[in-house]
Amino acid sequence: MGTCGIPGPVGDGQRSAALLREWAHRHGPTLDRARETLRTRAHWSPYPEDADGYGPGAAAAAKTALAALRGQVFHLGQPGQDGLIGPAPAEGGERSPYGPDLEIAYPHHDPDAVLGAMRRAMPRWREAGVTARAAVCVEILARINAASHEFALAAEHTSGHNPVMAFHAGAVHAQDRGLEAVAQAVEEQTRLPSSFVWRKPMPDGEDFALEKTFTLRPRGVSFLIGNSVFPTWNGYPGLFASLATGNPVLIKPHPRAVLPLALTVRTVRQVLSEAGFDPDLVCLAVERPGEELARRLAVHSDVRIVDYSGTTGFGDWLRRNATQARVFTSTSAVNSLLIESTDDYRGMLANLAFGLALYSGQLCTSPQNLLIPRDGVATDEGHKSFGRVVADLDDTLGTLLADPADAVSVLGALLSPEVLARVDKAASGALGTVAVAPRPVVHPDHPDAVVRTPAVVVLDAARPGDLATLSTEWLGPVYFAVAVDSAAAGTELLARTAREHGSLSAGAWTVSPEAQAALEEACSEAGVMLSFNLMGHWYITQSAVYSDLHGTGMNPAADAVYCDSAFVTGRFHAVGVRRHRAMS
Amino acid sequence: MGTCGIPGPVGDGQRSAALLREWAHRHGPTLDRARETLRTRAHWSPYPEDADGYGPGAAAAAKTALAALRGQVFHLGQPGQDGLIGPAPAEGGERSPYGPDLEIAYPHHDPDAVLGAMRRAMPRWREAGVTARAAVCVEILARINAASHEFALAAEHTSGHNPVMAFHAGAVHAQDRGLEAVAQAVEEQTRLPSSFVWRKPMPDGEDFALEKTFTLRPRGVSFLIGNSVFPTWNGYPGLFASLATGNPVLIKPHPRAVLPLALTVRTVRQVLSEAGFDPDLVCLAVERPGEELARRLAVHSDVRIVDYSGTTGFGDWLRRNATQARVFTSTSAVNSLLIESTDDYRGMLANLAFGLALYSGQLCTSPQNLLIPRDGVATDEGHKSFGRVVADLDDTLGTLLADPADAVSVLGALLSPEVLARVDKAASGALGTVAVAPRPVVHPDHPDAVVRTPAVVVLDAARPGDLATLSTEWLGPVYFAVAVDSAAAGTELLARTAREHGSLSAGAWTVSPEAQAALEEACSEAGVMLSFNLMGHWYITQSAVYSDLHGTGMNPAADAVYCDSAFVTGRFHAVGVRRHRAMS
Repeated sequence: MGTCGIPGPVGDGQRSAALLREWAHRHGPTLDRARETLRTRAHWSPYPEDADGYGPGAAAAAKTALAALRGQVFHLGQPGQDGLIGPAPAEGGERSPYGPDLEIAYPHHDPDAVLGAMRRAMPRWREAGVTARAAVCVEILARINAASHEFALAAEHTSGHNPVMAFHAGAVHAQDRGLEAVAQAVEEQTRLPSSFVWRKPMPDGEDFALEKTFTLRPRGVSFLIGNSVFPTWNGYPGLFASLATGNPVLIKPHPRAVLPLALTVRTVRQVLSEAGFDPDLVCLAVERPGEELARRLAVHSDVRIVDYSGTTGFGDWLRRNATQARVFTSTSAVNSLLIESTDDYRGMLANLAFGLALYSGQLCTSPQNLLIPRDGVATDEGHKSFGRVVADLDDTLGTLLADPADAVSVLGALLSPEVLARVDKAASGALGTVAVAPRPVVHPDHPDAVVRTPAVVVLDAARPGDLATLSTEWLGPVYFAVAVDSAAAGTELLARTAREHGSLSAGAWTVSPEAQAALEEACSEAGVMLSFNLMGHWYITQSAVYSDLHGTGMNPAADAVYCDSAFVTGRFHAVGVRRHRAMS
Repeated sequence: MGTCGIPGPVGDGQRSAALLREWAHRHGPTLDRARETLRTRAHWSPYPEDADGYGPGAAAAAKTALAALRGQVFHLGQPGQDGLIGPAPAEGGERSPYGPDLEIAYPHHDPDAVLGAMRRAMPRWREAGVTARAAVCVEILARINAASHEFALAAEHTSGHNPVMAFHAGAVHAQDRGLEAVAQAVEEQTRLPSSFVWRKPMPDGEDFALEKTFTLRPRGVSFLIGNSVFPTWNGYPGLFASLATGNPVLIKPHPRAVLPLALTVRTVRQVLSEAGFDPDLVCLAVERPGEELARRLAVHSDVRIVDYSGTTGFGDWLRRNATQARVFTSTSAVNSLLIESTDDYRGMLANLAFGLALYSGQLCTSPQNLLIPRDGVATDEGHKSFGRVVADLDDTLGTLLADPADAVSVLGALLSPEVLARVDKAASGALGTVAVAPRPVVHPDHPDAVVRTPAVVVLDAARPGDLATLSTEWLGPVYFAVAVDSAAAGTELLARTAREHGSLSAGAWTVSPEAQAALEEACSEAGVMLSFNLMGHWYITQSAVYSDLHGTGMNPAADAVYCDSAFVTGRFHAVGVRRHRAMS
């Protein structure tokens, strides 16, 4: 096998300093605009969502670039290499949910050698200061943005995203999340004056004076544990928040989704080197099958920050065991929406069907439980019974996903055998009556991909067994149409599920001011973002970077909020120095 | 026994609304100035430090007011009374460190009845909004400020403060800490817009729009565990941060220092009632001897925030067990200062002696370990040997504390038999050679008060036994003159002690730029505030509210910082609501 790596540090101090100045100048307005947008919460992004806007040859070039990785070792120039992971799946290599093995091998490193190098790299980065670090971070994001087609392809072939989802959540929106974290980090790091004179008038009329400084001190090595679903979107907030506040970052990718974070680390190391910093500030720790590296590294005394998105079980373990670190977690969510009434029945069905189909329900914000009063729903087309609503949803899904080429542009490939097992279980009738049967879809370009349309199973909130079923996260295209006694009962169930099992996004279709007020109160109390009467181009699954907060910290789904001040202030500290100044 | 209570809620809606408007108008400029000062970190306070500035009869009136409490039950009108605490010390009553029993009885309440009332009081307070809550908080602080002489007397006769310390740390500086927390709470609660329209241009040229709101949601009941040393100064940050962010606050005072917090709660409840809020938002939970109420309530499912200042042992217990709550702790500290060189030897000795004498070393910022190179110190009066420096310190302390009336105006009464036992142990020579022997001082006005001048014991950093001694907190007038090999060795020891055992304030006298640079780096790394070459009117023990940060969150002494953004952002959450808006 050959190697595909990056050059070592440039080592030309003058050139690096000039580059830093240039980046600070070039990216200053972007950063200012991002900080301003965090205040206004308006729509904005420096990273175009339209894939065609990246030049006519960009998509083809990305394909060529990723094809060139096949059969190679993805070298990053990190210290302490002691083996190889992959390329065969049995040796830890990745296989695309769309079929082929990626055939990329990754070096394995001795974690202690890597951590030692990271510690050594830290002082220079810390002393570079807020502005220089932010400039480097925004330059990294600009390079990643320029390679968005590459990142999108990597997202498709690791997480099973469809092309649009991959270009958005896998590339540009992840970049937005990163920039948002950099902007918030700059905001928080510039709140204290770095030096000032404190004068206190004394009873004798003279001023007593102290010269004071505040020094910001990063906590230490930040450990990012990637997931398989959105490794960049869920990973960039912690990566850039830690990096911008002066901490080195060690990234352990999910074994099924290494490539997106390997491409990220390659870019980060390249930019750090060009700017004259030690690239070992950011390292990748790919693990051997069964190595359980996350469990070992999360409790390492050098690790002072942990970012994790994944299962509730491991999140709880981290909070109990990684007590030497500040831990930020985003874990399982059981999201609900209530269908009470609507003045646009067709619009509601269309929006709902698209939301269920999107990426085959594999988002942490997918609305698993559809709560519908057993007496039915008032609509602009008259009263609709519970059964009628579910049947119309079936029809709407059928139309939306009738053509395989259209269907695979909305759905995603199922990212693991576990997801497929859940769909099969729902389809078997074991959970309840199957109201919408999942269908296999043959992908026109990837015949080996496992693609399924959504399954909707009917449950009844009055049955304890059904309550247990809907209270568990069923990641994937498994949805429950749940009969509830009333809108009030549905609101109560939605809030209870969020409070007890965690939730990141709740929705409702209702024209009733009373039902809206009750839902607002319940979601405020349970700490879950609520969307009313979504139509057209926006879905309950979506979180607008710079505008929406992702998570609230109030229910078990997440104690990390993208991106509030607490998400960055926990990553650094301020230390004061006071000096006596002779009276003048 | 009679009763001294407060009237019930006023219940006149119109009058309450007018009062709230008036307070918001009157206190707006104070709050704006406090917020501005948190940015500039300049000297400022709305609460005059000069006790004489509170009117000619204020001190006498305070004495009369507190005398009137003798033989009374301190009723606060809380629900669920189920017994009495005190007035005899054997029944849980307080005894002044200056001698007399306070002879005040406090009602005991069923905690569940109190928590139930607090939960019911919460919605109205939450919905009052940021401005109204802040206005009420500043009005409370204004009333407390007007009664500063009363609070100072209470601090003397519970914590053993001398009159000046009591007026400052027990009254006005505690009020400053409270206002600082309110200002920071307003700052953080006004960072998100409460409502706005988010517009995204669509490819068809139309704008897609969502109406969005953010609702701030307080976490829930806040539980404040008071200490015996500075119940108001350490208590007001948490009390006012929680109250200003919408949370009810349950206060469990230290059994030896109930009165300062009882007076506080009385004022808070009075102001809340006048403003038309349920006074049960803030309740006092006095405990029976041996009841261990803190252990029980800190893990109560209703309790969502815990503020604690006290021992490291109980702080660790809280962090491990009160996992349902956000826990803010400030625990034991082992503070050091290094004496390397000075250009004002006499000024240094005077500043140091005063810092050691102040409140008999019972501050969490008292400098326990005086690190002195064994080869001595360069000064403007020539080289001084280790022994000479210690002997000169003895002389300076002797002069400062020669006259009993002068001495008791700087020292404090020892607040517990445990403190006295530490002084006696130091005096016995069991810890090391006694270089400065502690002397009993007969208080001219309080002959029963236990007052001691500082003890200084000589230790050697090269002896493991001595290292163990200096690595423990010896709260009280017990100091160690520690021989170190060099300034560098002292710096290393200072940082190691801070890192491993916690420290809130470090100091140094040195004119060497190299030694200063090394100390700055070491203290930045260990996370401890550092003061250089203090002379005259400022001491290592002092923390200037609105200017200095108290604690860094980086070493075991404190994970709460008075008052950074994290101290308030952990007390509330933001929940978004998004509403579809028809295209226009």
